[in-house]
Amino acid sequence: MTTSRSMAAARPDGAAPRRRGPVLEHAILEAALDQLSSVGWNGLTMEGVALGAQTGKAAVYRRWPSKEDLVADALQAGLPRFAEIPDLGDVRDELYELCLRLRDVMVSRPGLALRAVLHECDESSAVRFRALIETGVVAPSKRLFARVLERGMTRGEVRPDALDDLVLDVIPALMMYRTKVCGSEWTDGEMADVIDRIMVPLVRSGPA
Amino acid sequence: MTTSRSMAAARPDGAAPRRRGPVLEHAILEAALDQLSSVGWNGLTMEGVALGAQTGKAAVYRRWPSKEDLVADALQAGLPRFAEIPDLGDVRDELYELCLRLRDVMVSRPGLALRAVLHECDESSAVRFRALIETGVVAPSKRLFARVLERGMTRGEVRPDALDDLVLDVIPALMMYRTKVCGSEWTDGEMADVIDRIMVPLVRSGPA
Repeated sequence: MTTSRSMAAARPDGAAPRRRGPVLEHAILEAALDQLSSVGWNGLTMEGVALGAQTGKAAVYRRWPSKEDLVADALQAGLPRFAEIPDLGDVRDELYELCLRLRDVMVSRPGLALRAVLHECDESSAVRFRALIETGVVAPSKRLFARVLERGMTRGEVRPDALDDLVLDVIPALMMYRTKVCGSEWTDGEMADVIDRIMVPLVRSGPA
Repeated sequence: MTTSRSMAAARPDGAAPRRRGPVLEHAILEAALDQLSSVGWNGLTMEGVALGAQTGKAAVYRRWPSKEDLVADALQAGLPRFAEIPDLGDVRDELYELCLRLRDVMVSRPGLALRAVLHECDESSAVRFRALIETGVVAPSKRLFARVLERGMTRGEVRPDALDDLVLDVIPALMMYRTKVCGSEWTDGEMADVIDRIMVPLVRSGPA
């Protein structure tokens, strides 16, 4: 695929811009993630990424004008997608399943890389990467969370006013707070505790 | 006071260790806070602090072997204390009062300095400063929060199992999450929302 593209006709002005196929772009993004995992944000260079993707620096810069652009795209492309939470018949079980998936994303290679980048980078870049956590991790999980709550309302388990954007903030807030305070990852038991001691009391409807 | 102390007899070995009185220590800690506010963690030097306290470098090092020790003590000494939350007759009003005070501490000069230091310092120092937020800000506020919940239980407003350390985590977690995501300080309205939409539903007892 890249061969035919790279043999595109020279332009009248003598320059020969060669399109980089999605295969090469994917290789560059993967190389960026590799660099992040091995040498981190500070150690990552466009040259190092080009080397890892077995291409030239120009090919990288043409597509991503800055290190920040490249790393943001690499992380965004790399973050796992959230699959729908199945109907498990019980809001408590569905919330637990959602938490398991949220944790899986946060401890995925791109998830860990994203948090490491936030640690290392300067404040102006951090703004962009925090936004990426929001759009790439938190917002999708909140959409799933909202559907879990809606099902719970249909079952009569969940109070009608529980579908509230602040309620949707509680789990990500607790997860990030806990990680900052303890520097630790959440265990299954810790997530079950948050569900049983916070989320269920918070969203359940009153006694029948 | 410092005069009489500084005139302590020379020791037999010829060295003349001079005690630094609490007045000088206070001046050094204040100078450290000044430095943090003006040049931040990275710009702060032991020499700069000594200059600001109108003393010699040795006087600083003798008491605080490292920059981290000095800054930790300065912040700890500087953080405002939490006064007891008065009985306002209503858990919602008392929680709101508590949030106002928590915010006041977080936006006090030492509170802002502490958060700025966390931004700038390396991970090993960050561990110590995060611990300081916990012991100096969050833990005291949680003790007050627990007393508010206990009063609420006595009134029958609050469910018996609401006194839970995870419940006590929710407000600091949401405050830190919000600050990270928006980089903004909490308005009165935002705090009222957290109380009304999260904390009250979370802790209230069932309908009579």
